[in-house]
Amino acid sequence: MTQQNTAPHGSNIGIDGQALWADLMETARFGGTPKGGVRRLTLTAEDRQVRDWFARTCEALGCTVTFDSMGNQFARRPGLDNSLPPITIGSHLDTQPTGGKYDGILGVLGGLSVLRALERSGYVTRHPIEVINWTNEEGSRFTPPMMCSGVFTGVFTEQEVLDKRDRAGKRFGDELEAIGYRGSEPCGQHPVTAYFELHIEQGPILEAEGKTIGIVTGVQGARWYEVTVKGKDAHAGSTPMPMRHDALLASARMIEAVSQVACAHAPTAVGTVGLIENRPNSNNVVPGEVFFTIDMRDPDDAVVRQMEEELYSQLPEIARRSNVEMEIVRIWDAPAVHFDPECIGMVEAAATESGYGARRIVSGPGHDAAYMARVTPTTMIFVPCADGLSHNEAESITEQDAAAGAGVLLKAILKADAAFNAG
Amino acid sequence: MTQQNTAPHGSNIGIDGQALWADLMETARFGGTPKGGVRRLTLTAEDRQVRDWFARTCEALGCTVTFDSMGNQFARRPGLDNSLPPITIGSHLDTQPTGGKYDGILGVLGGLSVLRALERSGYVTRHPIEVINWTNEEGSRFTPPMMCSGVFTGVFTEQEVLDKRDRAGKRFGDELEAIGYRGSEPCGQHPVTAYFELHIEQGPILEAEGKTIGIVTGVQGARWYEVTVKGKDAHAGSTPMPMRHDALLASARMIEAVSQVACAHAPTAVGTVGLIENRPNSNNVVPGEVFFTIDMRDPDDAVVRQMEEELYSQLPEIARRSNVEMEIVRIWDAPAVHFDPECIGMVEAAATESGYGARRIVSGPGHDAAYMARVTPTTMIFVPCADGLSHNEAESITEQDAAAGAGVLLKAILKADAAFNAG
Repeated sequence: MTQQNTAPHGSNIGIDGQALWADLMETARFGGTPKGGVRRLTLTAEDRQVRDWFARTCEALGCTVTFDSMGNQFARRPGLDNSLPPITIGSHLDTQPTGGKYDGILGVLGGLSVLRALERSGYVTRHPIEVINWTNEEGSRFTPPMMCSGVFTGVFTEQEVLDKRDRAGKRFGDELEAIGYRGSEPCGQHPVTAYFELHIEQGPILEAEGKTIGIVTGVQGARWYEVTVKGKDAHAGSTPMPMRHDALLASARMIEAVSQVACAHAPTAVGTVGLIENRPNSNNVVPGEVFFTIDMRDPDDAVVRQMEEELYSQLPEIARRSNVEMEIVRIWDAPAVHFDPECIGMVEAAATESGYGARRIVSGPGHDAAYMARVTPTTMIFVPCADGLSHNEAESITEQDAAAGAGVLLKAILKADAAFNAG
Repeated sequence: MTQQNTAPHGSNIGIDGQALWADLMETARFGGTPKGGVRRLTLTAEDRQVRDWFARTCEALGCTVTFDSMGNQFARRPGLDNSLPPITIGSHLDTQPTGGKYDGILGVLGGLSVLRALERSGYVTRHPIEVINWTNEEGSRFTPPMMCSGVFTGVFTEQEVLDKRDRAGKRFGDELEAIGYRGSEPCGQHPVTAYFELHIEQGPILEAEGKTIGIVTGVQGARWYEVTVKGKDAHAGSTPMPMRHDALLASARMIEAVSQVACAHAPTAVGTVGLIENRPNSNNVVPGEVFFTIDMRDPDDAVVRQMEEELYSQLPEIARRSNVEMEIVRIWDAPAVHFDPECIGMVEAAATESGYGARRIVSGPGHDAAYMARVTPTTMIFVPCADGLSHNEAESITEQDAAAGAGVLLKAILKADAAFNAG
């Protein structure tokens, strides 16, 4: 690490794809499930195990590993000018209750593979390089998701997060202390130069188009709604069709409308009814009440607003036609995130130089990067996952794609190292 | 009871509406709930209490009360010619778990009010008159419903019913013994001349049209189906609309189709999706699998068959258009029941003579009468219930309508007494 750069932009440095894959398989043992998935909820014994492993492994590469007051881990490889804030790479090592081996994990271990590539080649960057493991991205044990990148970027206060409780009543702050990961560095007082995150797509587009790399330009804007439709329970045999107030039939028409509103803003908009509860839910009773949720997204906030207007006009009209009452409430509003054009350009150039099939893509799910984009130049890299599947024990990617994503990450980091603070 | 008839067709005999209402309120105490409903599951202590009360009350009117091997109770008032099989009136005293005071009960106590009217006037019919309390019409503790009128009419064997078990594992036969209502007369070996059943409508038509009496011409034919729609779970944010296999959206289109198929056979046909289960039922996951039921009914079996053909053609086409797989299975087929034209005419004449607003109507729900129609001339009389509500603690009828229904029942019984075995 005391050598001079031997090649501009590190053209002779490469990712060890086999080592990256071995790391993925190794960490999958912490909380590994019989079906080949991972159950590693945040701040559990399994989370401590993978954090300890990550720290040990990075230290073996000569890095200094610290963690802040929210347990966010930072593995730092020094640069030539350690007064410069680090170029950072991050994601998360926690999983869903029946999660897979790659969601989040690929981003941290991809960062580790970059550290390994730099160390093995003896290449020293201008900036320090840091790999970050964010605490509780998934939000399944303690809600909401992206919790500690949220504190880091000022979206949440430290205290409100420390006081969160899981369903068993355990307090976030106590559980963080219990696994030994409540650090002394105040969360957020950690300047960075730029942030890159490698992640599985969690969607089917790259696989369908045979592309290896997604150059992520941002995160879609999303709004969530809860809809309650009230009709009247009635006997299915003795209630003539015109006398019914069928809450499920009305809801069926609204579900079709949600789809049509999204399709009218093709190809980017999506609209989904994912959850529905029908009452009394008996095969010979005309349903009297239905509750369902709507999830509307588009990369352009103006389109999301427009779709909301269409829903607010069409759904009550359907209710009126269907002789039922309805109420719609917006319960979540996440504006679109636009990543840094310069960082996006670095990823795009890296993919092109590597000869990978690539396309620009907008992330559907949120990521720690969505919050980091508020405080530093940020972008993401996607790789394909089989069938677009994630949050599932059957989550699957190839060793080649993992290595490709890490290779593009490495090249982008070196470009960022050259471009930022170039004076 | 030894007097001669004092008036042809009993024109001077009348129902005591207050006594009928008092009986309804009295029996509602056996299993009465805080909300004013009744929980009187078959073969429980409450069922025994109401049976004992019924037997006592009928015996006080001079009737002989027996019960058969399935616990069906028969309260017999002798006639002038006791070699004639009795004219019968029946229904049931058991209720749903959160049932009301009238469903079934009105039919038995309306029969009791006929016995009382005859006794008080000293009128002796040609035939014996019997009021029947059928065991387990509701089918909520032991399925299926209409169980012991089913044995009586040869639909089920005695042994298969005796061996049924409730969800706690208790055997029907043992529970029948335990309440002391396993009789020695073999169920079904009990000739009858005709059968009349008074019941609340359990639908909204009479109330909506301001009619007091429903002249029931039969029971609708009904077919039930189970539909399974298989798509693919996918992330609601990252899966473009054209790449989805949304099982709920497809199901919504099928629910609309069920309604349209029924409406195309207006005004008699009905079609209902009452039960739906959506998986994984998460607000940001495109649903991968939906299960729902369909209930199709019409008084004409040919229409039910025609609607089935339409469903079998339209639903797979919707599945194809919606990029999902589907399977539909018919799980129940109850052919239409057509009541006896002569009995129907007696009820119609009785309603007209009484000056009540009346209309012919087809029953949506099944009733003990639907089985009795297989073995003897049968019909039913409906009275309105508030909001069409039944199987509900809030079930409600008026004292006037109860008395009107019993009055029509009385007149119809006297007409039947005159008409049958007249030769």
